[in-house]
Amino acid sequence: MFDYKLLLALAAVVEQGGFERAAQVLGLSQSAVSQRIKLLEARVGQPVLQRSTPPQATPLGMRLLNHVQQVRWLERDLRRVVPALADSQQPERLRIALNADSLATWWAPAVADFCAQQQVLLELVVEDQQVGLKRMRAGEVAACLCAAERPVAGARSLALGRMRYLALASPAFMARYFADGVQRTRLAQVPAIVFGPDDQLQHRYLAALGVHGHFNHHLCPSSEGFVQLALAGLGWGLVPELQVRELLAGGELVELLPGQFIDVPLYWHYWRQGGALLDGLTAALRDYGQTHLHAW
Amino acid sequence: MFDYKLLLALAAVVEQGGFERAAQVLGLSQSAVSQRIKLLEARVGQPVLQRSTPPQATPLGMRLLNHVQQVRWLERDLRRVVPALADSQQPERLRIALNADSLATWWAPAVADFCAQQQVLLELVVEDQQVGLKRMRAGEVAACLCAAERPVAGARSLALGRMRYLALASPAFMARYFADGVQRTRLAQVPAIVFGPDDQLQHRYLAALGVHGHFNHHLCPSSEGFVQLALAGLGWGLVPELQVRELLAGGELVELLPGQFIDVPLYWHYWRQGGALLDGLTAALRDYGQTHLHAW
Repeated sequence: MFDYKLLLALAAVVEQGGFERAAQVLGLSQSAVSQRIKLLEARVGQPVLQRSTPPQATPLGMRLLNHVQQVRWLERDLRRVVPALADSQQPERLRIALNADSLATWWAPAVADFCAQQQVLLELVVEDQQVGLKRMRAGEVAACLCAAERPVAGARSLALGRMRYLALASPAFMARYFADGVQRTRLAQVPAIVFGPDDQLQHRYLAALGVHGHFNHHLCPSSEGFVQLALAGLGWGLVPELQVRELLAGGELVELLPGQFIDVPLYWHYWRQGGALLDGLTAALRDYGQTHLHAW
Repeated sequence: MFDYKLLLALAAVVEQGGFERAAQVLGLSQSAVSQRIKLLEARVGQPVLQRSTPPQATPLGMRLLNHVQQVRWLERDLRRVVPALADSQQPERLRIALNADSLATWWAPAVADFCAQQQVLLELVVEDQQVGLKRMRAGEVAACLCAAERPVAGARSLALGRMRYLALASPAFMARYFADGVQRTRLAQVPAIVFGPDDQLQHRYLAALGVHGHFNHHLCPSSEGFVQLALAGLGWGLVPELQVRELLAGGELVELLPGQFIDVPLYWHYWRQGGALLDGLTAALRDYGQTHLHAW
């Protein structure tokens, strides 16, 4: 069998983002952690870590981490059957990649009961879908929530529902730029808000109205910041309906063109052999999606 | 003089995150953009771009981008004096690194009027302070908002005020874990929420209570997600008072230990030779901070 002391040292350095914190968590000296990493590298004959700040796993290191994660899941399931094996009261950690807008809206209430009952700690990673699935493939995360359906090898994808996005702006913004109604020809000149280079929602919205090519926009890679920019009248943008129900009801944000929206599908990607814990979380998300997200 | 056509092609590829979008913005074919980058590399004798997805500037490329940015600022100031030079109605872009919590709370109302009046588009980058200042040094951003005071060479730092953080949890969380009052000895066992590996606020809060070392926590790198996790009862954590005034007033979140808080200073870092536009934004932030942030 592998020497799991060495693999756990690698996992701790990557999860904690450094040797010092890894040493604290493992209850070792920093030089002992460093020694274990060197020994591991001697055994596998290649570097497992890039000594950057924070240290990052090499491709080989990632494969080792993927293995550690799978062994942890198997152990967790075993402990459930043979409680005497539980050597500590440490809660389990689940590392999950998800899109920023889900995290800003429905994610927490969907998983809260499950996490409390199962004593699960979440390690959330906010990523757009390509990167999320890449992390999944590298074994860096146990699951991934994104808009792409196709699962990576060894994983399943489950359709949870759709998130509805409305194009919104503040009343002051509308009065400033569109006092006589929204003229489609001016839409490319007035400032929009875009989450980041991969956010194509505003492009799709404009394209549906026949507006193509470049349009003026702020870039704001934060769900909450996006809404704050819209509220302050800096621009218009597509925002999850779930995030702004009260602001819409109170008239603090208004629809650019009522009735025009974009629905984005949400798929939950999870390892087929991810263990009972991941299966339980998957069931909780499926149930929540059926009652709280838009249906297919 | 440099051939600015070539430098602008580099800037467009990096700013737009790819050759295709850069070509759209510049109104060129993709191969023309590619040609200009190759020509630039031939002139400087080194690669200026890593051909990754998205393409990233090499250290030399970054220095060239820094130069382009400074020339743009000078041009903008010149256009103000010689309006006939304004060759387009294109709004100016300002690239700014800032911390997630400022963006989620006071940033947008502080800059909204200035951006509308000056026709400025913001390109916001969310970074913790070390990375924000590193981007500043590399000339990737025009300014940086963070908790560190010391400016990089060529820049100034201005104290804007302090953000107050309160340790909060949901009433259900308090009832579950602290029905008989908050026992400090149990604080390391009940789940906390931590923004990321560099977020030491929870550590500092616990240390002030005499609790040292490892504590159970979720990781959630999103300001809004952080509040959602707290609201759903997944954990306790330090949240900007500005972000949760209504939730506190409505009793949806409560203080762990009333009267215990952490104040975090906010410094605005900006280039000394950043031009009139950056000076104007700096003045707007100084004024807003004086009336809306905690004083020193």
